Amino acid sequence: MMDLPELIPPLPRVLLEPIVRGALLEDLGRAGDVTTDAIVRSGVQLSGTIVARQPGIVAGLDAAILAFRLLDSDVRITIEKPDGTGIGIGDTVMRLDGPARPILSAERVALNLLCRLSGIASATAKLVEAARPHGRAQVVCTRKTTPGLRALEKRAVRAGGGANHRFGLDDAVLIKDNHIVAAGGIRPAIESARAHVGHLVKIEVEVDTLQQLEEVLRLRIDAVLLDNMDPSTMREAVARVNGRAITEASGRITAETIPAVAAAGVDLISVGWITHSAPILDLGLDCTLS
Amino acid sequence: MMDLPELIPPLPRVLLEPIVRGALLEDLGRAGDVTTDAIVRSGVQLSGTIVARQPGIVAGLDAAILAFRLLDSDVRITIEKPDGTGIGIGDTVMRLDGPARPILSAERVALNLLCRLSGIASATAKLVEAARPHGRAQVVCTRKTTPGLRALEKRAVRAGGGANHRFGLDDAVLIKDNHIVAAGGIRPAIESARAHVGHLVKIEVEVDTLQQLEEVLRLRIDAVLLDNMDPSTMREAVARVNGRAITEASGRITAETIPAVAAAGVDLISVGWITHSAPILDLGLDCTLS
Amino acid sequence: MMDLPELIPPLPRVLLEPIVRGALLEDLGRAGDVTTDAIVRSGVQLSGTIVARQPGIVAGLDAAILAFRLLDSDVRITIEKPDGTGIGIGDTVMRLDGPARPILSAERVALNLLCRLSGIASATAKLVEAARPHGRAQVVCTRKTTPGLRALEKRAVRAGGGANHRFGLDDAVLIKDNHIVAAGGIRPAIESARAHVGHLVKIEVEVDTLQQLEEVLRLRIDAVLLDNMDPSTMREAVARVNGRAITEASGRITAETIPAVAAAGVDLISVGWITHSAPILDLGLDCTLS
Amino acid sequence: MMDLPELIPPLPRVLLEPIVRGALLEDLGRAGDVTTDAIVRSGVQLSGTIVARQPGIVAGLDAAILAFRLLDSDVRITIEKPDGTGIGIGDTVMRLDGPARPILSAERVALNLLCRLSGIASATAKLVEAARPHGRAQVVCTRKTTPGLRALEKRAVRAGGGANHRFGLDDAVLIKDNHIVAAGGIRPAIESARAHVGHLVKIEVEVDTLQQLEEVLRLRIDAVLLDNMDPSTMREAVARVNGRAITEASGRITAETIPAVAAAGVDLISVGWITHSAPILDLGLDCTLS
Amino acid sequence: MMDLPELIPPLPRVLLEPIVRGALLEDLGRAGDVTTDAIVRSGVQLSGTIVARQPGIVAGLDAAILAFRLLDSDVRITIEKPDGTGIGIGDTVMRLDGPARPILSAERVALNLLCRLSGIASATAKLVEAARPHGRAQVVCTRKTTPGLRALEKRAVRAGGGANHRFGLDDAVLIKDNHIVAAGGIRPAIESARAHVGHLVKIEVEVDTLQQLEEVLRLRIDAVLLDNMDPSTMREAVARVNGRAITEASGRITAETIPAVAAAGVDLISVGWITHSAPILDLGLDCTLS
Amino acid sequence: MMDLPELIPPLPRVLLEPIVRGALLEDLGRAGDVTTDAIVRSGVQLSGTIVARQPGIVAGLDAAILAFRLLDSDVRITIEKPDGTGIGIGDTVMRLDGPARPILSAERVALNLLCRLSGIASATAKLVEAARPHGRAQVVCTRKTTPGLRALEKRAVRAGGGANHRFGLDDAVLIKDNHIVAAGGIRPAIESARAHVGHLVKIEVEVDTLQQLEEVLRLRIDAVLLDNMDPSTMREAVARVNGRAITEASGRITAETIPAVAAAGVDLISVGWITHSAPILDLGLDCTLS
Repeated sequence: MMDLPELIPPLPRVLLEPIVRGALLEDLGRAGDVTTDAIVRSGVQLSGTIVARQPGIVAGLDAAILAFRLLDSDVRITIEKPDGTGIGIGDTVMRLDGPARPILSAERVALNLLCRLSGIASATAKLVEAARPHGRAQVVCTRKTTPGLRALEKRAVRAGGGANHRFGLDDAVLIKDNHIVAAGGIRPAIESARAHVGHLVKIEVEVDTLQQLEEVLRLRIDAVLLDNMDPSTMREAVARVNGRAITEASGRITAETIPAVAAAGVDLISVGWITHSAPILDLGLDCTLS
Repeated sequence: MMDLPELIPPLPRVLLEPIVRGALLEDLGRAGDVTTDAIVRSGVQLSGTIVARQPGIVAGLDAAILAFRLLDSDVRITIEKPDGTGIGIGDTVMRLDGPARPILSAERVALNLLCRLSGIASATAKLVEAARPHGRAQVVCTRKTTPGLRALEKRAVRAGGGANHRFGLDDAVLIKDNHIVAAGGIRPAIESARAHVGHLVKIEVEVDTLQQLEEVLRLRIDAVLLDNMDPSTMREAVARVNGRAITEASGRITAETIPAVAAAGVDLISVGWITHSAPILDLGLDCTLS
Repeated sequence: MMDLPELIPPLPRVLLEPIVRGALLEDLGRAGDVTTDAIVRSGVQLSGTIVARQPGIVAGLDAAILAFRLLDSDVRITIEKPDGTGIGIGDTVMRLDGPARPILSAERVALNLLCRLSGIASATAKLVEAARPHGRAQVVCTRKTTPGLRALEKRAVRAGGGANHRFGLDDAVLIKDNHIVAAGGIRPAIESARAHVGHLVKIEVEVDTLQQLEEVLRLRIDAVLLDNMDPSTMREAVARVNGRAITEASGRITAETIPAVAAAGVDLISVGWITHSAPILDLGLDCTLS
Repeated sequence: MMDLPELIPPLPRVLLEPIVRGALLEDLGRAGDVTTDAIVRSGVQLSGTIVARQPGIVAGLDAAILAFRLLDSDVRITIEKPDGTGIGIGDTVMRLDGPARPILSAERVALNLLCRLSGIASATAKLVEAARPHGRAQVVCTRKTTPGLRALEKRAVRAGGGANHRFGLDDAVLIKDNHIVAAGGIRPAIESARAHVGHLVKIEVEVDTLQQLEEVLRLRIDAVLLDNMDPSTMREAVARVNGRAITEASGRITAETIPAVAAAGVDLISVGWITHSAPILDLGLDCTLS
Repeated sequence: MMDLPELIPPLPRVLLEPIVRGALLEDLGRAGDVTTDAIVRSGVQLSGTIVARQPGIVAGLDAAILAFRLLDSDVRITIEKPDGTGIGIGDTVMRLDGPARPILSAERVALNLLCRLSGIASATAKLVEAARPHGRAQVVCTRKTTPGLRALEKRAVRAGGGANHRFGLDDAVLIKDNHIVAAGGIRPAIESARAHVGHLVKIEVEVDTLQQLEEVLRLRIDAVLLDNMDPSTMREAVARVNGRAITEASGRITAETIPAVAAAGVDLISVGWITHSAPILDLGLDCTLS
Repeated sequence: MMDLPELIPPLPRVLLEPIVRGALLEDLGRAGDVTTDAIVRSGVQLSGTIVARQPGIVAGLDAAILAFRLLDSDVRITIEKPDGTGIGIGDTVMRLDGPARPILSAERVALNLLCRLSGIASATAKLVEAARPHGRAQVVCTRKTTPGLRALEKRAVRAGGGANHRFGLDDAVLIKDNHIVAAGGIRPAIESARAHVGHLVKIEVEVDTLQQLEEVLRLRIDAVLLDNMDPSTMREAVARVNGRAITEASGRITAETIPAVAAAGVDLISVGWITHSAPILDLGLDCTLS
């Protein structure tokens, strides 16, 4: 775990800054923070700590830090618990020192980002822990992410011990039921994909039944998405694939059902709710005059 | 309820379009939808229905519709269940007809927006229903929204029967604990706010105890935020305010605890989790060739 | 007055920078400053002073400073007369030292911003001084600001001793004549507003006659805008309001007419021309080799 | 005058739209027009007329029209007095018909643009008329324009009968006093400019005295800016130039002083205040239910 | 070839429009097309044809068309030779009819895009034809594209019969010499990549020698880039790979050298110069009054 | 030549940064550099040199440097061969030291910019050298530049010893064949231009024949573009102009044909291919661990 920050390099600032800048502009509006501007004198200095009010896994520190720094580069920040670290109630995640105004004005934006991303990491970690004893399956995310935050949410999944599925519509082929309808069948869909995409683009196909699986396996593909199968069917599916493709399970999988899915022997278990429905991790900022 | 779509006018397109456009660009990346482009021929037409897989309240239709239309203005759309409408499993929310490619390429972005916003409306509606028999309190949202989606999420809260708190740091004064620390006390904070903000800006102050409440009531303010008080203290607080200010309750309120809070007689109950932690409402797109 | 810079905190750089950057891009075009680039060698250093050619009140220094710094962060700047300060002919407002090229290339943009904003502060100050002996009314601005510069112009009004009305269409309700036409009357307009806006949003209504005023006062509102009333009607209106709402006078008020309006006892006097028609304050940049 | 709209083609929409869109976003904020949304039902239709409350010259109609249309393309608009037309009190400039909400929500932005630009056209026209009987000089604008609105303001000057000076720092060389300081003299400045700029870039030099003028005339330049000269010196300057360069007068010229300047025989009279200090032309929107 | 337009679906307008809009703004500057505005009356209509002055392959029509349409949606356009079509000298690629001003103002931007993209398609086609008789290798592009135009240039390569390599740094792993230096060897580089990237991300490794190739083949990778090998070494390399990975040849390959490379049996031949150094295809716009 | 960097001041960062930032975003996509992130540990430091693999002229260093610095401001850079310098094979243009990740992630963008711009400078220099012995003509560029890169490409032309034609449609009038068609003849075109453009805007007219030239010379213009004339006709044209206008030759001029064109005595020779078709100058980045 010690190595995790190494494994999840920070998002380059050219990618991160527009997101955080947009969030600040959304909260500051035209006039800025009228409360702080009206009641806090410019010389006041604060010390603050961001403290866990719930146990979980930290993610999104770089975004939170940038929120404060974009308002004032003089805010000094010390990270106590880097991304990917487990924390308990009362643990201090980050310390801040500096002028009161930017700290107070950026507080909500910083926490909105940090709590949401830590919530995703924490939800992922729970699934990872639930699955681990039962098989070698990795927990992976989907494209069911918050519009505008995908890059950050995908890193949060990794901070929680999960892995990333494709980042968008342009970096891999995933043929799902609606595509098969529009393409006129599984075979033309796969053959057409094979013919037109670049050599570094992998192809994955969603199947709902063992019959569909057999049809797909007769063609050359890189991965199969076993959608909404019960554990025993899934186990049979994994046996039939027999290493000829990566196997991915999906379909409303929860911490309760994941052990059986993992035990079916799949390579990957994709879970939409870790990004679309994970509750935030509750973190708060406590300040004192410094 | 019949009147709701009237009451929640669509967000002006100049505000909505940058959000939806950004979401599409995030998903399309540089190369666009390589799956659809490779396997669906340009003449293929689809009919699709967006169908509920869970009961709840619809919100975010304008965003979902724009996602399809920005890819191709030829997609024809019929709304079956407008924003604010309750739906059951299997209900059709929206029908689409048109070229297959844009429908498939916009599907995920449209659903990501629609499911998230409907999830917020549905969570709000549950709280509203739980509170209604016990008092006149309105359920209101907070600034704990998803960065980039605040305007849409605030409309979703209204679709669910809730009301909106301030939209950002610049449209009202809300003096919280950290502000009081930085201002050197409640009195200087309120007096300074009073002196510097415009005549159409209201002032609300957070209090944790009845003692703080008394101090605040001696000054002129518009609203008090009664934070984390137990129901009997809150009832006492409402009595002491006695109509001199709007009363707002806050502090991790859930569907279980909201009846007691409402019964305490507050005007408003603000709940962060309806925007920061509401699970999505599960909606899917089913397509057939047309 | 000594305290003013404290009272008007600088606009956060995330809000200020896009405005100044846009102004520089507008002036630099594609090719940059062809005059300076062609005739000034890169090693040349200048000392410059921005000097008043007219008496008035300074505003907009942060914007002017940023114009120079965005072209070259090595330009050293000393403020002699901060925002809100009165200046006389020949007074030095700001000193600059540094490389000649960025100083010359940013000169016009910096002065365009500084002279315009100082013009607004100066016009405001004249009205404030004219009104002060005659009543307690504050001079406030309107939404009749320059497109793109509203946040800066509203701060300039405060630098001149005025106060700010709402910043836009979304931070308060102001019901004017055209709204009343479209809503079908004053009563439905006010009741509808009361029913739909958040608890921190104030409601103001424009009235032209005492009869309309009476109608409005029977409903609950926060402020009345007494539009184009003669002083004696206005005095009567203030008497009838009798503290039940904030009173605001408007209607082409000038330095000549403001004493009578102030004497009528209103709380606020709003004046569009301080932002839409104030002449600039003439300031110039004088340079010497350093 | 009949030909003027022909002579001032509308700014291409790719240039105009970002300005108007930015102005709308500034006014609408995050939440949009809360007044209109709350009190005007969606089916209500209005007829409106934009009416002159002052005599003057119209400019900026394309910007005003786009403000309405960007909110709702269903607003129907008829132009009664095109850009460049003189109007009297009570004249109708433009008629609107359509849904009430977008008309009311765009009203202020449309008028802010239209009144400001018409104010510039009107101020220009006054100078043009004052100068015309006394010589052949054209009235031209400067770079002292409102940041963000230069392209629109320069067209407004033409609508008022004036002509345009350079649009920015990159389309012509204008050597002023501070440049001469930094370049080490007039001769090196001009020679360096001549050596480095493209063959389609003209060179103008500011001179304050006849002595400087003689020095400049010994070199090859396209235009001289005669700054702050009294009429008789200016007449002498024009005589000495004797057609070898375009002559431009500048220096706080007003409607009172312009006849003498024009009579001195210069080709151009540049006036900063027509863009930086012209009061708006007062126009209002009157609406009735339709 | 008949099918090509089907195979290369147009870039979605949300991706295409910012590029073309940016190109128009770059050319129009602040003031727009001063030549056309000054000399062409608004009623004038033109008919134009875009005609080949060189033989080659067309690409980029959607971008060229959008350039005209963004200036005026009334320009009517007929495509004579769709993307991917071979053309000879004098062939008409596209016909335009409509108002003269937008046609003339967009001409250069439209041609700059069309000629460049057609140049890339034409260069690609020459290599494809040269390689075809000698093996089954596809010609593929690289990331050596024009900053800002990558998506368009990659489609142009496909219009010329080539295929696309990865679109950027985030859609596949390509381990090159400098990465191996920084990773401390080929083995740690590949193992680290395998451990950290998603299951749909392929891994390709550059090798310069047969010895490196052997080392790479002992690990599991998807593709090898055989860089700068002579044909006989390359043939040996292909033999050693023996179907265990995709083989790609690279290294300054030209139309002269490509037959030998193709004959070596590689799957792909990547060529940087088709995007970074291909001369434009000369196309011109001829207009007549209509 | 020693003075050149002085003569070509760097593009202001406000103009340069959006171009480089856009190029980085295009390459990094949503997820950033997955190869480097996965295999290079964060502590690794590299030393790199950008080395010429071809002789030529350097241009675009500021863009390349900014690419590295925008990813990490800790990358230390030393310029060995500034813009405008001639280099031979193996020459080091620039040295880099710093963290490995940003160096590797920015490498391709930096080189794409640097190689393209150096290619333009090198192509320009070849023409300049070929023309120099035969006349005083300057080599100038056209508007046939890469969309989005015009400002950089025009500076590259100057780095190669050429000069710049107009930067866009708004900084000079150039009347070409299609304009004459639309204007109804050369005379109305020129007179209309003369009447409507500003006094600092020059007018150039394209002529194909001596007869057209005579017609143009009877009017007052600043420059004539002699298009596609053979050398003897061009010599005659220059004679007839006899200093009354700047003379510019154009029409597919190459290094082979330029001596004759220069010998004809024209002032300027404009060449489109130096920007639209110049091959890149091949430069590479070699790294070692530091």
